[in-house]
Amino acid sequence: MARKISDSTVRRLSRYLRRLRNLDRQEVKVVSSRELAESTGTTAAQVRKDLSHFGSFGKRGHGYAVPELRVRLEEILGLTRRWRVAVLGVGKIGSALLGYGFFAQRGFDVVAAFDSDRTKIGWELSGVRVQPLSELEPTFVDREISIAIIATPVEAAQEVATRAVRAGARAILNFAPIKLHLSPDVAVREMDVTLELEGLCYMVTAAGSAAEDIE
Amino acid sequence: MARKISDSTVRRLSRYLRRLRNLDRQEVKVVSSRELAESTGTTAAQVRKDLSHFGSFGKRGHGYAVPELRVRLEEILGLTRRWRVAVLGVGKIGSALLGYGFFAQRGFDVVAAFDSDRTKIGWELSGVRVQPLSELEPTFVDREISIAIIATPVEAAQEVATRAVRAGARAILNFAPIKLHLSPDVAVREMDVTLELEGLCYMVTAAGSAAEDIE
Repeated sequence: MARKISDSTVRRLSRYLRRLRNLDRQEVKVVSSRELAESTGTTAAQVRKDLSHFGSFGKRGHGYAVPELRVRLEEILGLTRRWRVAVLGVGKIGSALLGYGFFAQRGFDVVAAFDSDRTKIGWELSGVRVQPLSELEPTFVDREISIAIIATPVEAAQEVATRAVRAGARAILNFAPIKLHLSPDVAVREMDVTLELEGLCYMVTAAGSAAEDIE
Repeated sequence: MARKISDSTVRRLSRYLRRLRNLDRQEVKVVSSRELAESTGTTAAQVRKDLSHFGSFGKRGHGYAVPELRVRLEEILGLTRRWRVAVLGVGKIGSALLGYGFFAQRGFDVVAAFDSDRTKIGWELSGVRVQPLSELEPTFVDREISIAIIATPVEAAQEVATRAVRAGARAILNFAPIKLHLSPDVAVREMDVTLELEGLCYMVTAAGSAAEDIE
């Protein structure tokens, strides 16, 4: 049976997987919960708890079998297949993303890029040709693109996101600092630098003062 | 008394604040919990719960007083002061960040940038001159920099983060896809695009299948 896992658990599973892939590449066969915890910034108890939901991958005191656990986490996270991605908006962020070498290695194929700026149309960035926004819909359909990365200015973000979803995108990674309004069955994550900076300011400001937990 | 608020609550407070600042700029005086919820992607009940921790900002049925709530959230998040930020690594991500106009508006002053590439030293990006990494320590001290944004290649991230912390940084925003090992009193947030993409894949894969909640 499939299970619904909280966002923070999913993030930890991704981190375990990142570590497991490195270990697997080095042909390490077994990893302890403590080792996994240390390299991902959590506790051994949390690792054991997270992994206990998905079956048994090791014997107490013997650690986890690296290749098996890697494959199982890839299955859980939906990473046994490749995903087709489009970048919407080829400004600084968009072109940084197109140049980011890790995507293909992690199973993400960036197969299209769009911009409204006519001077950018036809540019080729890391093998991807920049297309005009008018070609968004047919391109999403033809290339079976399921993930759209929004890297447009704020003003354009909602419109291009809506169009991408209508053309078949099922997930949106949003770099524009606004809340997108989309159908609830579309998966959305925000990458908002100032939101993270504000979180850091809170942590620095609150550190050292008498604390009472608020969930 | 200061209170320790969970990461997810802090993120929501930041989103409320973003909305409140916009409303305040438009001289809107009152906002309902429903309106705040809609523009930030949560529920009215969650808004009321989040804000109830910090005192009373409105009367039942009358909504919240915009300027008062804005100031209170700025106090809670530590945003009544300005923060000095350095960008470490001036590749694509680093230069995108230096060009990002919203920082100053939100209270963050980018006052330094560093790179190890000698051809980049002396470049001026959005008014900030790129300095060699050898000048990191004296610059952090002189300019009282408290936040370091790590935008170096993976291999360099741990070393520059350690140096920044030793030179006085109290918070790190990390764009390099590795877990940094730093003193526990340093605030750290990660910006990892592939981690977010993997989270989206999980959401898309799990959607539609019978779900049992796992926390």
